[in-house]
Amino acid sequence: MRRAIALAARGLGHTSPNPVVGCVVLDASGTPVGEGWHQRAGGPHAEVHALRAAGDRARGGTALVTLEPCDHTGRTPPCTRALIEAGVARVVYAVPDPTPQAAGGAATLAEAGVTVASGLLGAEAAAGNEAWLTAMRTGRPFVLWKYAATLDGRSAAADGTSRWITSPQARADVHRLRAEADAVVVGSGTARADDPQLAARLPDPRARPTQPLRVVVDTHATAVRPGARVLDDVAPTLVAVGEDADARHLAGLAEVVRLPPGPRGRGLDVSALLAALHARGVRSVLLEGGPTLAGAFIAAEAVDKVVGYLAPTLLGAGPAALADAGITTIGQALRLGVTDVARIGPDLRMTAVPERPARPTTSQES
Amino acid sequence: MRRAIALAARGLGHTSPNPVVGCVVLDASGTPVGEGWHQRAGGPHAEVHALRAAGDRARGGTALVTLEPCDHTGRTPPCTRALIEAGVARVVYAVPDPTPQAAGGAATLAEAGVTVASGLLGAEAAAGNEAWLTAMRTGRPFVLWKYAATLDGRSAAADGTSRWITSPQARADVHRLRAEADAVVVGSGTARADDPQLAARLPDPRARPTQPLRVVVDTHATAVRPGARVLDDVAPTLVAVGEDADARHLAGLAEVVRLPPGPRGRGLDVSALLAALHARGVRSVLLEGGPTLAGAFIAAEAVDKVVGYLAPTLLGAGPAALADAGITTIGQALRLGVTDVARIGPDLRMTAVPERPARPTTSQES
Repeated sequence: MRRAIALAARGLGHTSPNPVVGCVVLDASGTPVGEGWHQRAGGPHAEVHALRAAGDRARGGTALVTLEPCDHTGRTPPCTRALIEAGVARVVYAVPDPTPQAAGGAATLAEAGVTVASGLLGAEAAAGNEAWLTAMRTGRPFVLWKYAATLDGRSAAADGTSRWITSPQARADVHRLRAEADAVVVGSGTARADDPQLAARLPDPRARPTQPLRVVVDTHATAVRPGARVLDDVAPTLVAVGEDADARHLAGLAEVVRLPPGPRGRGLDVSALLAALHARGVRSVLLEGGPTLAGAFIAAEAVDKVVGYLAPTLLGAGPAALADAGITTIGQALRLGVTDVARIGPDLRMTAVPERPARPTTSQES
Repeated sequence: MRRAIALAARGLGHTSPNPVVGCVVLDASGTPVGEGWHQRAGGPHAEVHALRAAGDRARGGTALVTLEPCDHTGRTPPCTRALIEAGVARVVYAVPDPTPQAAGGAATLAEAGVTVASGLLGAEAAAGNEAWLTAMRTGRPFVLWKYAATLDGRSAAADGTSRWITSPQARADVHRLRAEADAVVVGSGTARADDPQLAARLPDPRARPTQPLRVVVDTHATAVRPGARVLDDVAPTLVAVGEDADARHLAGLAEVVRLPPGPRGRGLDVSALLAALHARGVRSVLLEGGPTLAGAFIAAEAVDKVVGYLAPTLLGAGPAALADAGITTIGQALRLGVTDVARIGPDLRMTAVPERPARPTTSQES
């Protein structure tokens, strides 16, 4: 199963709106004879890849799968049928499928006489599918907020300069996060100040990341102008604007989505943005700031995980990494639990998750 | 020698203006027969404690000492004489004594026919004596700046509340730092907002830390009023005020030191403060902020080490942990090297040292 979880991870960034899944098939004597992973939405599921590799040797054998095999016909036939037809005697899966349309695989297999067991390395497999499982639970994309700051919490110096706050190693790590995300979201301040391309570039030149959808929250449609790097042809781009914004200059250059205003009329409604992305199949969002947009996401309780790159640098002045999160007194502070701390070159990478559960999006926030 | 270094550490916070020193004496066959450490200024040196424990068994043996044995008569006779009279055949020390008045011990021992070797675990022993060695090199006390902040660098919420930003474990760790320091320094903002006692309390009720000198930088002599907790009788207190401040209300309650103004007439001259503390025998200072005073120390290049307690909490508003360090553009940022990262309860403790060498205080900064 550990091998299946590792295989599943190869699909990160490529499979939405589907989960990542890995599968290892053992023959009747317990020898691995086939493995596979779900490589892209619309392509064969992990089980089908593994069964193809195993061929006849799957008969009487065991399939180890990171997620309960699907029982429905979407763009591909149900995996339950493929497993039964291959003559697999036993299926062990790590995590049950929480979706109404695909669930029921375990029951179907058992009815066909296949021995079924579940829960093996369940926590580990669930962590590997964190974004998709969170999206299924909350009804909106999983949101990872990434920020970079000095030890005193500044994202730039007093004069606005911010080049090289973090190291090349930290910036490469961010490109990995982009490659694993379905969409990268920035606000108008970042778009205007940095003119970012928001593409994923990986150190291995042969690596071909699935480029994330690039999203700019540009309430007044003034930050993204023709010629902006985010409008190049590396990846599709979506610009979210207010209902009244004049976005004619974006025609033919980016998809424009109109959204209602956020709380107290400021910015755009975060839940409406996430709903629009969810409807497009986006299951994981990398929120790259800046501070105001991050504050709006935190105020909307729409951050599932935080990754902070802390540069061992002190400034003593300059904008903070987070602003306007609607918190005025210490009792309202958003408390998190640190899940990982790593040295990335000279910098620290801190990963944490909010202690309060993320709020499902059932209606639009205001 | 590793044992000697561990013994030396027991003296931290108790020996200034002397260094911490540990000593292990082996008999002629190499068996440990005595150990000791320098317990308090004015008391016997480590070598004397260890030789007393060893008695006649030191004859023909070896003394392992973390610092080159002293060769001068201060409040106690020179250790070189004690070692020679005990008949020790060999002395191994880790770090040479850098002070003109105490150095020369190695030469004196060699002249008396004792075999002398140096450098064993030198880096480790030097780290254990970091504060004292830095003070000897720079001519001013070693300064450790401690701060506590949220992940977004805030030291309090927008309304000024700051209780429990960090955990009880982190606060206990700060008391350990206080117990190891000769002086604890805060600014008027902290004195006014928190009314801190600034005493060292250790978890073990039997532990009797040497209380640090409590220092408040109170330029206008308005923050420390009679009845302030920092004026209680747990430890001596020094209030640094401006040359023109009216400090009559502190008469008999605290020592008052008058200092020249800092750069651009703001605050007090950091180097003059450190010189005044050095003259009192203070070799290590724990700077506990707030942000303005920390900024003045950083601007004066008078911070030798930074310990940051990062609470996994987000605020999005509120004062920063560091302010007014004289840095306006990213190229001027103070870069540090991270030397340690530890989990302290739910918090992170990050230790770092500035990459530029601390500037020796040869004249008063302005």
